[in-house]
Amino acid sequence: MNDRLQAVRNKMKGLNLQGMIIANPINIKYLTKIDAEGILLLTRKENIFITDGRYMEYVSSIITPFDEIVIDDQKNISKDEYENFFLFCENVGFEEKYLSYSTYKDFIRKYKINNFVEAEEILTSLRILKDEEEIANIKRACEVTDNCFDMLLKFIKPGLTEKQIARQIHNFYLDNSEGESFEAIVASGENSSKPHAMVTDRIINTKDIITIDMGCKINGYCSDMTRTIFIGEPTEEQKNIYNLVLENQKRALDEIRDGASIKTIVKGVESSFNIQSQTLIHSLGHGVGLEIHEPPAVSLNNDILLKENMVITDEPRNLFARKFWNKNRRYCSCNQERCFNLDRIE
Amino acid sequence: MNDRLQAVRNKMKGLNLQGMIIANPINIKYLTKIDAEGILLLTRKENIFITDGRYMEYVSSIITPFDEIVIDDQKNISKDEYENFFLFCENVGFEEKYLSYSTYKDFIRKYKINNFVEAEEILTSLRILKDEEEIANIKRACEVTDNCFDMLLKFIKPGLTEKQIARQIHNFYLDNSEGESFEAIVASGENSSKPHAMVTDRIINTKDIITIDMGCKINGYCSDMTRTIFIGEPTEEQKNIYNLVLENQKRALDEIRDGASIKTIVKGVESSFNIQSQTLIHSLGHGVGLEIHEPPAVSLNNDILLKENMVITDEPRNLFARKFWNKNRRYCSCNQERCFNLDRIE
Repeated sequence: MNDRLQAVRNKMKGLNLQGMIIANPINIKYLTKIDAEGILLLTRKENIFITDGRYMEYVSSIITPFDEIVIDDQKNISKDEYENFFLFCENVGFEEKYLSYSTYKDFIRKYKINNFVEAEEILTSLRILKDEEEIANIKRACEVTDNCFDMLLKFIKPGLTEKQIARQIHNFYLDNSEGESFEAIVASGENSSKPHAMVTDRIINTKDIITIDMGCKINGYCSDMTRTIFIGEPTEEQKNIYNLVLENQKRALDEIRDGASIKTIVKGVESSFNIQSQTLIHSLGHGVGLEIHEPPAVSLNNDILLKENMVITDEPRNLFARKFWNKNRRYCSCNQERCFNLDRIE
Repeated sequence: MNDRLQAVRNKMKGLNLQGMIIANPINIKYLTKIDAEGILLLTRKENIFITDGRYMEYVSSIITPFDEIVIDDQKNISKDEYENFFLFCENVGFEEKYLSYSTYKDFIRKYKINNFVEAEEILTSLRILKDEEEIANIKRACEVTDNCFDMLLKFIKPGLTEKQIARQIHNFYLDNSEGESFEAIVASGENSSKPHAMVTDRIINTKDIITIDMGCKINGYCSDMTRTIFIGEPTEEQKNIYNLVLENQKRALDEIRDGASIKTIVKGVESSFNIQSQTLIHSLGHGVGLEIHEPPAVSLNNDILLKENMVITDEPRNLFARKFWNKNRRYCSCNQERCFNLDRIE
């Protein structure tokens, strides 16, 4: 059996779970490399992936005997067979944050489950610590994103629309990665203060501030980078706020290490903002991996301590949202740290 | 109060619900036009949208006094206030297919709910019947998709990669709509038989079959169209299968009308496929609207009857997946019906 499936089974034992239903496709991909619709059942004796006609050929091509995964087409499974998968299982685990209430109830009925136990933490606790290969993928995704930003610095100039810049990002990622990890945000001028910005046909002007939030995927792993660009020389006030955000990002980065308290780090940034009459909007960051947002949340109400091989973003924001990857650390996603004053108004 | 919120409140009365929590952002957008993170509470006396600092400015700009929606920043709401929203409410409704099991439990605790009742059907039953404006948006999205296909017929030729075609689609939609309703599938040659196709760097060859599945959004409403293209003259076997799919699609389209049984229509297609030793993969179609997949499912296990102003796809598939919009009907999403033999090998 592959290591990750084995790790899940070990944790199941510790929680007295005899079975588990894994429905989140990202978790299924993490455990099996299968990227298809279906359900993964860990029964007493077997690992079973139930899918449908569309995916049988593909899934069979992915699985190796070493994985010890049985593939089933759902249309060949009878009502009785469903009810027998977890026969003699006292407790069966499920992903409580992924399953809808409705599916939760369906599963209990369909699989005749005695005691359906919240067990998503098993997957979360595995996925939150990245292995060498995962980190290499995230780093590569960050590098491609850095290159994308370098390209943008040469590309962006007054007269372009937000949409044209967004398209440039999209195409760069198509050429150099598996594509965007989320739809890029390009917010200029009055739009740049809206963290909820839609990409519009607004034309970039001189004196604009542009916030760009973008990322790509490498082998399924995401990067996530935000940069603020000034067209021309920023005002004193703009510089002050920019530097406040930058300093706090740097400080947070310094504090991010094995054993550090997420809460303490976020509190530090928050008070530093408040002293300058600024407000820390939303949280300071989030985990990144197979999903663009995953645990741990880097916010005031997260009590956990950071551990080596967690990957998180460091993105204090008020008006400006910015994120970094420090190549010497494993904790944050993104690349360099620079203050950009882009002046292309010749 | 706007008509849709009023309709929800009327249905709540019929189900003896004194309150309702609406968490699905698509439902919130449908009811309020607000496109932001947050929760919509329908309490005894008020409609309250709870959001956070990122969206306060935007939401305030969207809401009119006529909507009768109160906006609250979550950080200003105390524990007690949360517990008082549904005070004296015997039954409070929720979206059982949208809420995760975990959030379901959180809400009961946070809002001190006595009886939390599955009530997603209220929203589903409203959204499943489209009004004039919604249908106009879907039709427009289908027209843009038709135009995209016309563009592709001129663009596609041997030597291009799947990715280059996908990018052309993406850019066309950026220029002519709000962008893709889902990431376009371009599956050629051996990839075209995989309904799960990823877009790859595979180069289009002479004699290839290309399956293209694409759609865009207009005012939030989706189109969804699949076409199969032959590069050069198809073989007799290919023609036979293509025509089998085409005939069944046409027949289903003829049967799709107010009062028709979804089950009967799907059964008809299934047996016609089986007689030719072909298998109907997956379902026959699905509803389309603000979401690319929404009720009603057009599959064997859906017992409902079609009603005027439902919008569904008609996409029988075995090897080839194809969908249509018949301009004279309101039931199906897509545009013309044509058999394409694309020969660009001069």
